[in-house]
Amino acid sequence: MTPTSNMLTIHPLPGIPEVSRGDDLPAMLLVALETAGLALEDGDVVVITHKVVSKAEGAVAPLTGDDEDAAYRRLVLDESVEVLRRRGDLVIARTRHGFICANAGVDRSNAAPGTAVLLPPDPDRSAHRIRMALEAASGSSIAVVVSDTFGRPWRRGLVDIAIGLSGIEALLDLRGTTDAGGRQLAVTEIAVVDEIAAAADLVMGKADAVPAALLRGLNLTPGRGRATDLVRPASEDLFR
Amino acid sequence: MTPTSNMLTIHPLPGIPEVSRGDDLPAMLLVALETAGLALEDGDVVVITHKVVSKAEGAVAPLTGDDEDAAYRRLVLDESVEVLRRRGDLVIARTRHGFICANAGVDRSNAAPGTAVLLPPDPDRSAHRIRMALEAASGSSIAVVVSDTFGRPWRRGLVDIAIGLSGIEALLDLRGTTDAGGRQLAVTEIAVVDEIAAAADLVMGKADAVPAALLRGLNLTPGRGRATDLVRPASEDLFR
Repeated sequence: MTPTSNMLTIHPLPGIPEVSRGDDLPAMLLVALETAGLALEDGDVVVITHKVVSKAEGAVAPLTGDDEDAAYRRLVLDESVEVLRRRGDLVIARTRHGFICANAGVDRSNAAPGTAVLLPPDPDRSAHRIRMALEAASGSSIAVVVSDTFGRPWRRGLVDIAIGLSGIEALLDLRGTTDAGGRQLAVTEIAVVDEIAAAADLVMGKADAVPAALLRGLNLTPGRGRATDLVRPASEDLFR
Repeated sequence: MTPTSNMLTIHPLPGIPEVSRGDDLPAMLLVALETAGLALEDGDVVVITHKVVSKAEGAVAPLTGDDEDAAYRRLVLDESVEVLRRRGDLVIARTRHGFICANAGVDRSNAAPGTAVLLPPDPDRSAHRIRMALEAASGSSIAVVVSDTFGRPWRRGLVDIAIGLSGIEALLDLRGTTDAGGRQLAVTEIAVVDEIAAAADLVMGKADAVPAALLRGLNLTPGRGRATDLVRPASEDLFR
């Protein structure tokens, strides 16, 4: 095996213009790929930040009334199924998808003035639609991951994670795998799509200048995972 | 700018043999790099799983007595400064480094029979020593990240994160950055070294067959970060 055969490459896909409701995001991705000199190949993974997906789908809400801050706070509560913690303006909430995150994923940065961007209503379905369009255009079997930027308890700083996926398993299941000494591995499930989202963020512009990236060389088997596979059931969760 | 100029590549570094106390890990990494046909360049980031670092440093403890499981449980408590949650055999604990993780980072998989591998006592110092040796041998300015595999509340599956670093900032600080609309970014600090560790895990063998990886093309400015920069102070933490 040559060293380059198992190398992973991550290409930023810049040049995607400001996205509005109804825009054909797959077509925009194909232009960005062509501009970057890339043609989709079997096994490629396209990662796209949810913000452009939400904008294309119209998952944007106006901040109505005289007080935009108050309207934003109402919107966060509207998008929350459960509020876990609250401190000052920060709300840690569970969304209807099951994700637990700051402000229920409602974001005013990189939104048009007087608006906030919501999470896509069904990010797995968004990923699926984008994958179908990219596969139809390219003839290649790929995977698509929709990412968002989440904080973590206990650790400072934010990391990108997967909130939608298509064509790939969410978790790499190592149950039953043994180490060199024959002991069952304590680590049984790797959240490989979260690692993919984090890796893609390393080449993305931090002000959403680069909202997409292409990963090549992962050699993962295709799968039918959903982002909800990553949601830990309340019964298993020790921190609610 | 050509597309390849801002491409990130991640190379697995296989072929590192079983590591024992006192082994020269930087020398082993240099052999693995040479075998992979790679010479270190300025700006490269070498990621190495903590397990081989711990083994080289002798951070391995015997499971003494008739009952190895009981010895393991005692060891976990010895390595814990604070136990946050406990369910069955699972303990979520804070280590003396400040990390909050399962079983205080004590791991029996990929350990010699009758032993468990601990976290290195000072993983930033471990990273620093490895960086110094690799830089002396190569003449290149690089960064080194020591990784471990952590679970997360709320999300299933594990991801690799950084527990030690040298030559790089832990966090990418975006405070004061504005989006295209002039609004201050809500996302202010990216845990870039955690994203680096996660990205590296995508090319590593899941049974520690590939304990190291090389990232090239990140174009990060050198820094003096520490993994403790990633530890959220208890006063800021809503989930203890």
